[in-house]
Amino acid sequence: MAVACVSDRFLRACRRQPVDLTPVWFMRQAGRYMPQYRAVRARHGLLEICQNPERAAEVTITAAEELGVDAAIIFADLLLPALPLGFHLHFNSGEGPVIEPVLRDRAAIARLPESLHGELGYVSEAIRRVAGHFPDTFPVIGFAGAPFTLASYLIEGGASRQFAHTKRMIFEDRGAWALLMQKLCPMLVEYLSEQVEAGARAIQLFDSWVGALGEADFRHAVLPYNRLVIEAVQDLGVPVIYFSTGTSGYLGALRDTGAAVLGLDWRMEMSRAWSELRGGCALQGNLDPLRLFSPAAELKSAVRHLMAQSRGQTGYIFNLGHGILPETPVENVKNVVNWVREFSASAL
Amino acid sequence: MAVACVSDRFLRACRRQPVDLTPVWFMRQAGRYMPQYRAVRARHGLLEICQNPERAAEVTITAAEELGVDAAIIFADLLLPALPLGFHLHFNSGEGPVIEPVLRDRAAIARLPESLHGELGYVSEAIRRVAGHFPDTFPVIGFAGAPFTLASYLIEGGASRQFAHTKRMIFEDRGAWALLMQKLCPMLVEYLSEQVEAGARAIQLFDSWVGALGEADFRHAVLPYNRLVIEAVQDLGVPVIYFSTGTSGYLGALRDTGAAVLGLDWRMEMSRAWSELRGGCALQGNLDPLRLFSPAAELKSAVRHLMAQSRGQTGYIFNLGHGILPETPVENVKNVVNWVREFSASAL
Repeated sequence: MAVACVSDRFLRACRRQPVDLTPVWFMRQAGRYMPQYRAVRARHGLLEICQNPERAAEVTITAAEELGVDAAIIFADLLLPALPLGFHLHFNSGEGPVIEPVLRDRAAIARLPESLHGELGYVSEAIRRVAGHFPDTFPVIGFAGAPFTLASYLIEGGASRQFAHTKRMIFEDRGAWALLMQKLCPMLVEYLSEQVEAGARAIQLFDSWVGALGEADFRHAVLPYNRLVIEAVQDLGVPVIYFSTGTSGYLGALRDTGAAVLGLDWRMEMSRAWSELRGGCALQGNLDPLRLFSPAAELKSAVRHLMAQSRGQTGYIFNLGHGILPETPVENVKNVVNWVREFSASAL
Repeated sequence: MAVACVSDRFLRACRRQPVDLTPVWFMRQAGRYMPQYRAVRARHGLLEICQNPERAAEVTITAAEELGVDAAIIFADLLLPALPLGFHLHFNSGEGPVIEPVLRDRAAIARLPESLHGELGYVSEAIRRVAGHFPDTFPVIGFAGAPFTLASYLIEGGASRQFAHTKRMIFEDRGAWALLMQKLCPMLVEYLSEQVEAGARAIQLFDSWVGALGEADFRHAVLPYNRLVIEAVQDLGVPVIYFSTGTSGYLGALRDTGAAVLGLDWRMEMSRAWSELRGGCALQGNLDPLRLFSPAAELKSAVRHLMAQSRGQTGYIFNLGHGILPETPVENVKNVVNWVREFSASAL
């Protein structure tokens, strides 16, 4: 199965340049919904895949080729930086990740190492292999968790609904939070710079849980750090996609991160986001991942509805509003790729 | 400790009439953060409190008097209607509620009873006692879970992050979802009508989890049912507060429910909500409950910032953006009541 993309339409859209067809890729496109991935996963743990560049490259490439999308996102886990920071990481099936020990006091924050010392080199090596596999026109996306989201995992010790410990640190002890951010930001810049050096042509920064905060708190406790990381990466010449969820109430603050692209969830109509942002950045999103369970006619109609909202806009990248879920029918994902081609072509 | 409120400022604000001071109450104001409640809870299970009108009235009254707020919300649980519907309900400490069996197929939905047959009479009896305790000027708020949120608990079997089963029903089998809504709506109207009959002067409809949906799906799968329930309750002469979270992206659709008041979470600045809604309804909210853990000076400043956003607006009710959390310092909650008085008085 050959990759359909022969233009760099994904990167052009990131830069808000006109494209031949709307570019499309999917968050978590290499994942448990796909039989080829499950076959690899049956033999290897999640970390074993991430830490072996050959395997990580293989699942990355297979997914991109199988779906015929316009970009490959490197197979890795948002929590990998926890390892060189000295945390233990377990993935209990069905219950999400467990990170130990929890990070809740200033002394422990002060003891965090200052650099990754190349310990995540397997990620950039995997990127190097994927980039080498594809023609120059086909981009590999690198990624990391944004400072808030990464910090929230370390502080909560895993997934959370209320992010009570994280927010209590922000609200009760600003100094501890600032110290943690000052530790994490240079490390993320280091990690992402390695990925760019290895051939990543764009970087997605996942701030999946930052929507736990309101706008004033986002602007105070998150925005300065995000700007710092995003600016450092974009100075290397690659666009950053800043992805967040639950943040429909403050798109302007998201734009103020300076990211070339904002990745949005489905909680706001894309048409509204365009009119609110008035072309200040490119937009990526935002089909509800659960929509992929709909019968074909309804799914097609949802894709049409979504595509219509970006008609006439430059800088639109089709994606979901969050990652593909494990039980998603592969056929539906492939259909969506075809419909995106069809609807964008018909707009020419 | 006497109730400070001698005017019906809460009800006046619901109707967007001028008030002497900004009314204030707190979601989950009778709860585990309060020692008096913990003392009762040490002797009785949650359901034992809800199902005993004397006890439920006692914890409701104690909290309202202790805090000196402008309204008492009846102590009850959003999941009580699951009992007459034939579900088992357990509250495992720390893990949230468990509802059994899960409700996922059309046959099971079809078998749900058509009426509560007065089986939740203990809630209205508790309301009757609270209303009898307070002077006429002090309102008791009744409540229920909104159709989506109640349904999500029955379908998921408890709390959820992605609401995958609920959304799959909406996306995969519209007919099953419509049938479930047709069962739940008349039942909720029956339940809330009993509460109004017993003396509830306002009703809050909790749609805590509806933000899992995007706007188009909200409008199709939720809005018609919410309108039906809200209209039926408001026809009885009491205002409905429609509370939701994660819905900053579609305030206009929330307003289309017809509710007199919208309860908002902290994910959107209140000033923005006012300008977007242009006086179409009263607004309640939206301090982040985690803010109540801040040191006094910062908390006071957050309250001032929030109050300033509603300066000059009629129809503002101070509240949190979600319920008070268990470990919240009581002193901070009381301080907030005083600061709301202070800042609204200084605006006169």
